[in-house]
Amino acid sequence: MALEVVSGRKVLYGSNDSKETMRVFASLFEHEVPFEFINVNIKPKDHRSFLSQIPFGELPVYKEEDDDLVLFGSRAIMRYISHVYMIKGKEHVFVSPRMQGMVSSWIESEDHWFDPLASKLIYELIDKPKVGLPAEEAVVDETEDELAKILDLYEDQLKENDYLAGDKFTSADLTHLPNLYYLIKTKTKRLFEERPRVAAWCALIMSRPAWAKVLAMVHT
Amino acid sequence: MALEVVSGRKVLYGSNDSKETMRVFASLFEHEVPFEFINVNIKPKDHRSFLSQIPFGELPVYKEEDDDLVLFGSRAIMRYISHVYMIKGKEHVFVSPRMQGMVSSWIESEDHWFDPLASKLIYELIDKPKVGLPAEEAVVDETEDELAKILDLYEDQLKENDYLAGDKFTSADLTHLPNLYYLIKTKTKRLFEERPRVAAWCALIMSRPAWAKVLAMVHT
Repeated sequence: MALEVVSGRKVLYGSNDSKETMRVFASLFEHEVPFEFINVNIKPKDHRSFLSQIPFGELPVYKEEDDDLVLFGSRAIMRYISHVYMIKGKEHVFVSPRMQGMVSSWIESEDHWFDPLASKLIYELIDKPKVGLPAEEAVVDETEDELAKILDLYEDQLKENDYLAGDKFTSADLTHLPNLYYLIKTKTKRLFEERPRVAAWCALIMSRPAWAKVLAMVHT
Repeated sequence: MALEVVSGRKVLYGSNDSKETMRVFASLFEHEVPFEFINVNIKPKDHRSFLSQIPFGELPVYKEEDDDLVLFGSRAIMRYISHVYMIKGKEHVFVSPRMQGMVSSWIESEDHWFDPLASKLIYELIDKPKVGLPAEEAVVDETEDELAKILDLYEDQLKENDYLAGDKFTSADLTHLPNLYYLIKTKTKRLFEERPRVAAWCALIMSRPAWAKVLAMVHT
């Protein structure tokens, strides 16, 4: 199907250090889409009337003003951007339906298996210590065991290709970046280092120039 | 982008009364895709060697044999089918990127907000009683309160159109059907009936001929 390119002012409402906002940043930078960012950590008051209307109260929300388009759900926004703003030769999806299906399956893998475990570990190992609470070691051990099994499947999947859904970087890889960013600051990092293909994949996708731009946003 | 149509023997491995399998049934029937169904409740032994290789051990798995394509994740399979087997004039996606984005956001709404609450209620009100355990009333009440808030947003979204993502039936509606099928058998049904537009939407999407075919599969 033909996808015409949408023009118009693009605004992302989010929180610069939230994983969901980082996912959308990464997709926007990869696709070289100019956008305005409203950091709701800093100016929620200015935008209170808009923010009160956000579906499910969940950020980020992506808005294209000329088109009166409002999208929510970080992976939905990522999918939208990867289809509408694809750069010829550097698409984050595949044109062949078979490969597009693979991208979808591996986005769902991140969403349903990788993310819940990663989020639990980040909560225990980063969020709780930050407010002076100890990590619950039994929860950490159990969650790491589950994540290790998932990473064994990733190690296997990366046998034939450098990327999850085939021989090029796609949204299936990109969607993992925000959790990786936080996890490699914790002792869980070793689970990635112990698996050579997973370790190489992490290094590869974290070295992308667009990801450096995301980190600059996170650290402002 | 152009999507060529894939040929080849199509096999769905699943469990005929699982919500995830029902989601894929619905999409296959809507798109009139001929497929073979392997009910793993009945013949797991015959397929043990294949099943042992299923990513994440999660069903359903969809296989196109000629292409050596194996997809997992019920929503990923649904997305694949809706793009590859679209029927002209009855597409379950929109050709315009704006509307495709809306479909993605409302699939994510089902996945992240509707499904977790619905699954919790189905567990308490159907699965537990089935094995002689009482439902935990406090959990049911609290979950229904949360679901009611979500359904208020649905009621609002349905103000302008009969369907969630626009003026026609799409995968964003379809993906809700399996949870609806189970929830309307419980007292939670009233939350849908109390909201006129949500009630009309439920009646509309549950009356589709393809859904009748799914129910025939569930009841075999």
